[in-house]
Amino acid sequence: MRNAVIGVDAGGTKTTTALATEDGYIIKMLREQTPTTEGAQAGYEVICVMIQNLINEAVKFDFKVTHIGVGFGGPVDFKHGIVYLSHHVEGWENFPLKEKLETKFGIPTIIDNDANAGTIAEWMFGAGKGMDNLIYVNIGTGIGGGIISDGKLLRGWKNLAGEIGHITVKPDGPNCTCGRKGCLEAFSSGSAISYKGTLYFGKPLKSEEVFQLAQQGNQVANKIIQEAVDMLAFALGAVINLINPQLIIIGGGVADAPENLLLEPLRKKLPEYTLPESIDGLKIIKAKLGYDAGVIGAIALALLEKNK
Amino acid sequence: MRNAVIGVDAGGTKTTTALATEDGYIIKMLREQTPTTEGAQAGYEVICVMIQNLINEAVKFDFKVTHIGVGFGGPVDFKHGIVYLSHHVEGWENFPLKEKLETKFGIPTIIDNDANAGTIAEWMFGAGKGMDNLIYVNIGTGIGGGIISDGKLLRGWKNLAGEIGHITVKPDGPNCTCGRKGCLEAFSSGSAISYKGTLYFGKPLKSEEVFQLAQQGNQVANKIIQEAVDMLAFALGAVINLINPQLIIIGGGVADAPENLLLEPLRKKLPEYTLPESIDGLKIIKAKLGYDAGVIGAIALALLEKNK
Repeated sequence: MRNAVIGVDAGGTKTTTALATEDGYIIKMLREQTPTTEGAQAGYEVICVMIQNLINEAVKFDFKVTHIGVGFGGPVDFKHGIVYLSHHVEGWENFPLKEKLETKFGIPTIIDNDANAGTIAEWMFGAGKGMDNLIYVNIGTGIGGGIISDGKLLRGWKNLAGEIGHITVKPDGPNCTCGRKGCLEAFSSGSAISYKGTLYFGKPLKSEEVFQLAQQGNQVANKIIQEAVDMLAFALGAVINLINPQLIIIGGGVADAPENLLLEPLRKKLPEYTLPESIDGLKIIKAKLGYDAGVIGAIALALLEKNK
Repeated sequence: MRNAVIGVDAGGTKTTTALATEDGYIIKMLREQTPTTEGAQAGYEVICVMIQNLINEAVKFDFKVTHIGVGFGGPVDFKHGIVYLSHHVEGWENFPLKEKLETKFGIPTIIDNDANAGTIAEWMFGAGKGMDNLIYVNIGTGIGGGIISDGKLLRGWKNLAGEIGHITVKPDGPNCTCGRKGCLEAFSSGSAISYKGTLYFGKPLKSEEVFQLAQQGNQVANKIIQEAVDMLAFALGAVINLINPQLIIIGGGVADAPENLLLEPLRKKLPEYTLPESIDGLKIIKAKLGYDAGVIGAIALALLEKNK
């Protein structure tokens, strides 16, 4: 009987689970809508059914599931495996997810937030393979991030490290989802770009469409994108001065924007905001794993725990 | 024969060395002016004479010196023990300090920058004892800092992590010593406060004197201090969101300012720039070790290496 692990990406829109070998090779992947209006219990039950299906699958192929890793869409008390809250679904406050899954399935389970899971995924299997000091920034609806420093994920006191999206870039700037003002997320996230596009063009625009307009030479769209990139450079400057990474990986939907509108101007702008010796040699690249980074990260969490 | 270590704080103004027991108890301390105009070789020779004196002292008391730790006033290639440069004295560029000292004295030697040494000092022997996640900020002529995360000093790719003083707080702000504009150091360091005081009052003023005037109710001095504190809060907000520390320790000369002008308004201002869950429970306190943090940190570096 060979060993396998299960990864669970419990996101705000979709729940993705996968069964993988000890080398991280995915044997089977399942994806379901996350029940967003029925509260935490409904979401938990979807997770349980999907895990059970994968355990059944494992048995069929003569695999033994030794660990479960969960990447959750919200802050998590890593030590105790308790969800602090969900950014998308009510009722997850202080939900003891680790304990409940371990009791139900009898398999050691590790819970982390999805930004950390994505970071570990890109570090173990993606664009950051073999690097000991890197930053992962996921720019989608919001902006999340994670830090690998000296070959270890940086967690901080309450596993809240890496909140790049909520660095203030402009005091008294636009409102942020966190209730404060002028966070990076309020300038450079997909939803911030979309919001501004919608406002300035007087019709609903997705962030991709704002990028498209900018690419076609539209000046207003270009200004929106330029501000988003400048603010991103400003926040990343602080990150670089503090963490001294070798690599910055940009993931999430916005990372699919044309290189000449996002990564190129970002690289050009960054030296304004960092010590020259800290930016010297630093690389800024696109993430490799795309949408599946979440579930691959959950698998990676399980594998890290297994090989501890 | 008992074991001992030697610590060297090679600062821009003074060079301090000390012989200490394995518990960090200082047996003998020496302090000399750092030769600032005669280049690196002169500074290196002063260090060597002082180390030799302490080795002789150790022999007298039947101690064997097992390790030497050096905290250097400038960035250092930690892995190879090479000084990148001195902020104060010319000729230190790529100086192989570890190799030279090890060849001369035959004692394993560890070199780090003085901000890291100060951080380790406060963590092992000062205000941060027993804490696994803390930030140390030294506000003096410049602003340096260090990060202890998950019980380890965070070094980054090239041992350049923790450069809190060079986080941009205001694009196009005043000139900084690093050649850029609007760094925290250009607003909140002792020399920045002194510079502004001198400018606004039309006579040379030290930063302590600006604090004194503010304490006496002078509105101009108060404005200078308020801006310094606000910018410090802005930069520390980024640090807190990224690192999620349990404790922030403020050291250096400026930390001696009255609590009601520095730490109190800082604590009040910080929540504007951080996620509420990251600031919840965080403590901001004054450093404990004062001027000797540097040499105590160098001793701590030696002890950490010894106990590795």
